[in-house]
Amino acid sequence: MSQQRTGPTDGPDFPDLPEATVARLPEYLRALHHLAEEGHDTVSSEGLAAAAGVNSAKLRKDLSHLGRTGTRGVGYDVTLLIDQIEQVLGLTHRRAVALVGVGNLGHALAGYAGFGSRGFRIAALFDADHGRVGEHINGLVVRHIDDLPEVVDEESISIAVIATPAHAAQNVADRLVAAGVTSVLNFAPCVLNVPEGVDVRKVDLAIELQILSFHEHRKSALTALPGRAGQDLQRADRLGAEAVGS
Amino acid sequence: MSQQRTGPTDGPDFPDLPEATVARLPEYLRALHHLAEEGHDTVSSEGLAAAAGVNSAKLRKDLSHLGRTGTRGVGYDVTLLIDQIEQVLGLTHRRAVALVGVGNLGHALAGYAGFGSRGFRIAALFDADHGRVGEHINGLVVRHIDDLPEVVDEESISIAVIATPAHAAQNVADRLVAAGVTSVLNFAPCVLNVPEGVDVRKVDLAIELQILSFHEHRKSALTALPGRAGQDLQRADRLGAEAVGS
Repeated sequence: MSQQRTGPTDGPDFPDLPEATVARLPEYLRALHHLAEEGHDTVSSEGLAAAAGVNSAKLRKDLSHLGRTGTRGVGYDVTLLIDQIEQVLGLTHRRAVALVGVGNLGHALAGYAGFGSRGFRIAALFDADHGRVGEHINGLVVRHIDDLPEVVDEESISIAVIATPAHAAQNVADRLVAAGVTSVLNFAPCVLNVPEGVDVRKVDLAIELQILSFHEHRKSALTALPGRAGQDLQRADRLGAEAVGS
Repeated sequence: MSQQRTGPTDGPDFPDLPEATVARLPEYLRALHHLAEEGHDTVSSEGLAAAAGVNSAKLRKDLSHLGRTGTRGVGYDVTLLIDQIEQVLGLTHRRAVALVGVGNLGHALAGYAGFGSRGFRIAALFDADHGRVGEHINGLVVRHIDDLPEVVDEESISIAVIATPAHAAQNVADRLVAAGVTSVLNFAPCVLNVPEGVDVRKVDLAIELQILSFHEHRKSALTALPGRAGQDLQRADRLGAEAVGS
């Protein structure tokens, strides 16, 4: 991994990063801020990889996309690398975010302390329920969803979080896009249809658990223990037979 | 994509699926349940791909890991495919889940209706704050974290959700692992160290927003519009120059 790459570019102006690299940059950023707070000026790729929970070869490859960032034998300059990653992620100014849906989850998100310190400001809260409009949450007043276009314009909002029930989410997404929002973080358990140029990321809490369930199931199948694991193993045997024989 | 594969197996008993495939199977499952509710008996790969929000070549490749699941010209049998995916994901019995940390986010998660219908049952709530112990949330009583070993054993819990502040999460993870939990869904913004054989998935809400911020930044840089986008473009120009020239 000693070659020093300059990243391929998407046009002359912007590095065209693999999506998986983009997803890991915030992890590196968090680890770097932590190192800076502890007084470190430089960090080795091994040290940064361990702090971010990835392997160091993957980290070096990811950072190579940003250009020449490390010095052999010295490592990465912590402050410089923070600046580079924040520039790529567009975190050099704090972004205003709208949150739609102030049920249990919306309340939790509105009060999530992690946003402010990581480049974001919840600038507006919306709900379709007139009973909730006017409620104060963390210093913000809940507005009616009909006020969306006006507020998105006033606050220069381009990112929105949808925390509504699934049945309401597509309509909310349509209204957000019509108001000018171009990135959506969707907590509703459904697929959103959005026009080209609008980015959606989805957090589905049940899906995360289902992925863990797969790993539980696999571990049970591979470890032939008495009791529950034994039953899972029998089930996996049948499954294996079907997968090969059907 | 016409070849019909039987998946490679991890030992004779269990399909060894790529992590990205495992992450998409729950999406297919949700789409299939929706199709079943609407009365569909079969579905084409294109139809299922659209409903799940992925491209159909990727879907066919993913499902090929499960063995021969579709019939050319007919498509997939909806009920059969639901059964196959639920077996692989270990969703044939409802799994008991423990939730640690009943602050705002923990409250929202404890009340999340999506878990029950998707194979999970929140079986126990824990907090380290004696002021919260005894509180009733959605029919469950909050227990003290010291009761963890006893409850994990009683309820046969193997999956836990951590919704504590970051500074408490590693200690909670250690206690969960010591009590016998082998899969953790971590909402605390930190990397957890766990022994081999324990799976961790992380949901970091600020990281999801930072990934969207990258896409916002890229869109601004590629669309040379007057005003804000133009400023971003200048920033991206400098960034591009640095990435190539530094």
